[in-house]
Amino acid sequence: MKFLHLADLHIGKNILEQSLLEDQEYMLNQILKIIKDEEIDVVLIAGDVYDRAVPSSEAVEILNWFLEKLIKEIKVKVFIISGNHDSKERLGFGNKIFENDGLYIQTTYNGSIRKVVLDDEFGIVNIYMMPFIKPIDVKQYFEDVENYDDAFKKIMANEDVNEKQRNIILAHQFVTNAGKEPEKCESETLIIGGTENIDVSHFDKFDYVALRTYTRPTKNRKRNSKI
Amino acid sequence: MKFLHLADLHIGKNILEQSLLEDQEYMLNQILKIIKDEEIDVVLIAGDVYDRAVPSSEAVEILNWFLEKLIKEIKVKVFIISGNHDSKERLGFGNKIFENDGLYIQTTYNGSIRKVVLDDEFGIVNIYMMPFIKPIDVKQYFEDVENYDDAFKKIMANEDVNEKQRNIILAHQFVTNAGKEPEKCESETLIIGGTENIDVSHFDKFDYVALRTYTRPTKNRKRNSKI
Repeated sequence: MKFLHLADLHIGKNILEQSLLEDQEYMLNQILKIIKDEEIDVVLIAGDVYDRAVPSSEAVEILNWFLEKLIKEIKVKVFIISGNHDSKERLGFGNKIFENDGLYIQTTYNGSIRKVVLDDEFGIVNIYMMPFIKPIDVKQYFEDVENYDDAFKKIMANEDVNEKQRNIILAHQFVTNAGKEPEKCESETLIIGGTENIDVSHFDKFDYVALRTYTRPTKNRKRNSKI
Repeated sequence: MKFLHLADLHIGKNILEQSLLEDQEYMLNQILKIIKDEEIDVVLIAGDVYDRAVPSSEAVEILNWFLEKLIKEIKVKVFIISGNHDSKERLGFGNKIFENDGLYIQTTYNGSIRKVVLDDEFGIVNIYMMPFIKPIDVKQYFEDVENYDDAFKKIMANEDVNEKQRNIILAHQFVTNAGKEPEKCESETLIIGGTENIDVSHFDKFDYVALRTYTRPTKNRKRNSKI
């Protein structure tokens, strides 16, 4: 089974009041070509599909076109989680209906991580879909959750991951190693703030972790790698 | 085949800054009960699903819940056209994917009226889906379109309706008899204005015309019947 992992499409983003939609459509067309050429079976989109909780109608139209190509024409399975920029209600519209057609969109955590089971000639592949959450989103399920790392400790302790099978998880948190805080670009700092990193060890049971893109400083500029 | 015809749900409408969402959810629950009790097969929603082109996330959530109930639980077919209050991009999101599951949402006119063919023990039933259009929306297809009535004359002349079969059309225009203009409530006048009525004779070939709700003055008050 061949996977393509995308994240942070940020469809509809403007930079200095300049719309990126035309470039984004071009980029998505290139991605469609890769998916066809490489005979991809499953596309993972690890959050921040849109750039805003209320995307423009043009952004909605482009995501619609992209997903229809994937589902109806190329006929791959698609797994999407919401990121910190996405509205769970808007991105989640129709998600239960779409699942009949191989399009899985998960925008909420409801006490356990949504798991979708796929298989191929080598056996089972479990796809875990963990949308971006803040600690407050899980306080109804777990006690003593003070920060993001606490939240993920509890969330993961509550999951029974069968390590004899292949396990993939989509997540959109800031993941760091040994408690280090990541460097962030300005827009992320504005939106999230605080100590929202979680430790990479929470994902030890998974064979592949499909995360958001991360940011790091490049010389004097800060750059946000997109895909 | 049993049909239920709805229109003008206007989900998310406020009156005097008071949200109607709670009442609307109650009303939609009553509609679900009717659909189950009456063993309805097909639900027609003739436009103005939302009250605004950019509905609130709460309004999106309620429509999502209602449609999921209809499609996944009660398993009726649902046909929706956009009205003058709906955004064609937003309401149309995912429509090609939804069709596998019996949910048809039509928000554009593309040179002929979208037709979906159903059948039962008595033969064929054609469902024609005509979203709300302004004359400008059809000028690329037809010449000499000055007003709404011209537009519909051309649109209908272009359709080959088989009158030996049963034919239903969903439409969201102002339809009047013998050229009379309809009376309108204030919000409609503000949004549309002008001479937008079309003559009822354009629909002569159809056995049932699922229109929007109409408005008429009741003594000194103007009232907008909702369902």
